[in-house]
Amino acid sequence: MLDIQAVLSGQRLALARLLTQIENQTAAGEQALAELFPHTGRAHLIGVTGAPGTGKSSLVNQLALHYRKDPQPKKIAILAVDPSSPFSGGAVLGDRIRMSALTGDTGVFIRSMATRGSLGGLAQTTAGLVQAFDAAGFDIILIETVGAGQSEVDIARLAHTTLVVEAPGLGDDIQAIKAGILEIADILVVNKADRAGVENTERALRSMLQLAHPGQRVFRHHGQTMEVATPEGEAETLWLPPIQRTVAADGSGLPELLAHIASHRTHLETSGDLARRERARLAAELDLRLQQALVARWQAGLTNGEYEQALAALAARHISPQAAVRQLLDHGKE
Amino acid sequence: MLDIQAVLSGQRLALARLLTQIENQTAAGEQALAELFPHTGRAHLIGVTGAPGTGKSSLVNQLALHYRKDPQPKKIAILAVDPSSPFSGGAVLGDRIRMSALTGDTGVFIRSMATRGSLGGLAQTTAGLVQAFDAAGFDIILIETVGAGQSEVDIARLAHTTLVVEAPGLGDDIQAIKAGILEIADILVVNKADRAGVENTERALRSMLQLAHPGQRVFRHHGQTMEVATPEGEAETLWLPPIQRTVAADGSGLPELLAHIASHRTHLETSGDLARRERARLAAELDLRLQQALVARWQAGLTNGEYEQALAALAARHISPQAAVRQLLDHGKE
Repeated sequence: MLDIQAVLSGQRLALARLLTQIENQTAAGEQALAELFPHTGRAHLIGVTGAPGTGKSSLVNQLALHYRKDPQPKKIAILAVDPSSPFSGGAVLGDRIRMSALTGDTGVFIRSMATRGSLGGLAQTTAGLVQAFDAAGFDIILIETVGAGQSEVDIARLAHTTLVVEAPGLGDDIQAIKAGILEIADILVVNKADRAGVENTERALRSMLQLAHPGQRVFRHHGQTMEVATPEGEAETLWLPPIQRTVAADGSGLPELLAHIASHRTHLETSGDLARRERARLAAELDLRLQQALVARWQAGLTNGEYEQALAALAARHISPQAAVRQLLDHGKE
Repeated sequence: MLDIQAVLSGQRLALARLLTQIENQTAAGEQALAELFPHTGRAHLIGVTGAPGTGKSSLVNQLALHYRKDPQPKKIAILAVDPSSPFSGGAVLGDRIRMSALTGDTGVFIRSMATRGSLGGLAQTTAGLVQAFDAAGFDIILIETVGAGQSEVDIARLAHTTLVVEAPGLGDDIQAIKAGILEIADILVVNKADRAGVENTERALRSMLQLAHPGQRVFRHHGQTMEVATPEGEAETLWLPPIQRTVAADGSGLPELLAHIASHRTHLETSGDLARRERARLAAELDLRLQQALVARWQAGLTNGEYEQALAALAARHISPQAAVRQLLDHGKE
């Protein structure tokens, strides 16, 4: 069985075991998550997303190292999620490269998940892993995802602060940066900023930001907030996503990036956004779980072959999808 | 009320009214879809997807024109879906440009949908529109989507044959082409093939195809099938996605592209893939509708404020999501 007390007291082996149970979606993992839930809600969840080649993983390592160097060092968990890669080796290799810099530091826990699953399922598993880290007392949880697909957006929704990483020299950029990804960005990072073309990348990001937020006149280089009037005439504090240049290879720009993250956290707390995001996230989790439970309960009431018969009648176009649903729901009620 | 008989006999005004009802998700639209369902399943659904700038819309127009020039002209519906665009004007403008070439031809029906909705909802609405075109007797339904997001993948799943369009000169290409999109491609089109760099684009596509299908040794230029052994030792016919160059502006490569589409259709029919895809699609639709119906039925049984109370307890971390689900489900049962 899983030792909840050992997880709460931060024992690595107990945590590793729990993470595996959550990833495998076992009943024991579910039970443990329910017991750990009251102990969650303290960590700062930072999402880091970007296309391959942006140096995202090195940046995540540097963030971890800088948080460890703090006068009051933070406990850091890194969760690397690659939903698109058919090559599970990539994530493993990533861990090995990471080891060299962060090895032996018990204040850092790294976990990668390269399994290819259903989209909704992946976000849910990620949420479970994050809750486990949170309960185990990690102060900062870095959630690293690749690319710009829906699954990345879903996973990013988990995070309190989302960093979108770009780099010069990845082509025309505009094509690579999806509007949907910009919308979730709290901080834009131009990594590999020692490369040629950094001005172009930054300019492209700035004009895309202006396109994405046409109502906002000013975009300053440094993260800051702006007071605006809501349609109802009330005052609202908006966060203006700053653009920060970094060179993960030598740590340039990292102190500034940490400062932006800290400002964003403060903004979330003072504006009430943190509570709103948390509530929205929990509501989404509740709705998904309710949906699954309702389907499971209904399925348990079905007689053998009933669903298959309805599907066959549907495929033969003897009944419509609407009629099939009515038929199956009526049976499920008995 | 909606005139089902008029839709079935192909009257454009009745069809246009029905499409609007489906888009607005009205009860009348749902009822009409249920009645039309037995008359669906005859059209060939062709998905066309690609990044902005690939000339995808012109290609769709050319496909329509070529199908109309056939000795036995086909009835063509074009459904242009842009889930990401915040600018609804784009789709409207697209329709106007199309008009000049296809105007006055009653064998062609064009509809665009630029509304920005929830992802699942968009795919569902698209499926409804496609069913209406199918029942109204259109032989070919061209479903045009932009980009490489999850919604495009969802919409592409509707199609029997999916064309992924690329073009030279859109940057490094490799970044722009998402692995997920390649997986859904039945035919790869390099449009604007009179431009410089066409060889690079084709080479990039070819190597990405080989990466995506590492088991398949050969990739020939022309669409063809390959016999392989399944892990169970049975023979299986695989479709090898061909790469076709086109110039939509002057129609070059269009006859070859139509031939590839026809070959793919034949492959789908002879391999049994068509029946399998149809069944999988209908099963997915049934599951989604069941889920929605179960949630709606449960919600109807909730007392006022019950859900909100559970959510508040959850946000305060007084109960776990698992406990909240148990509590809400028990109440819903009464």
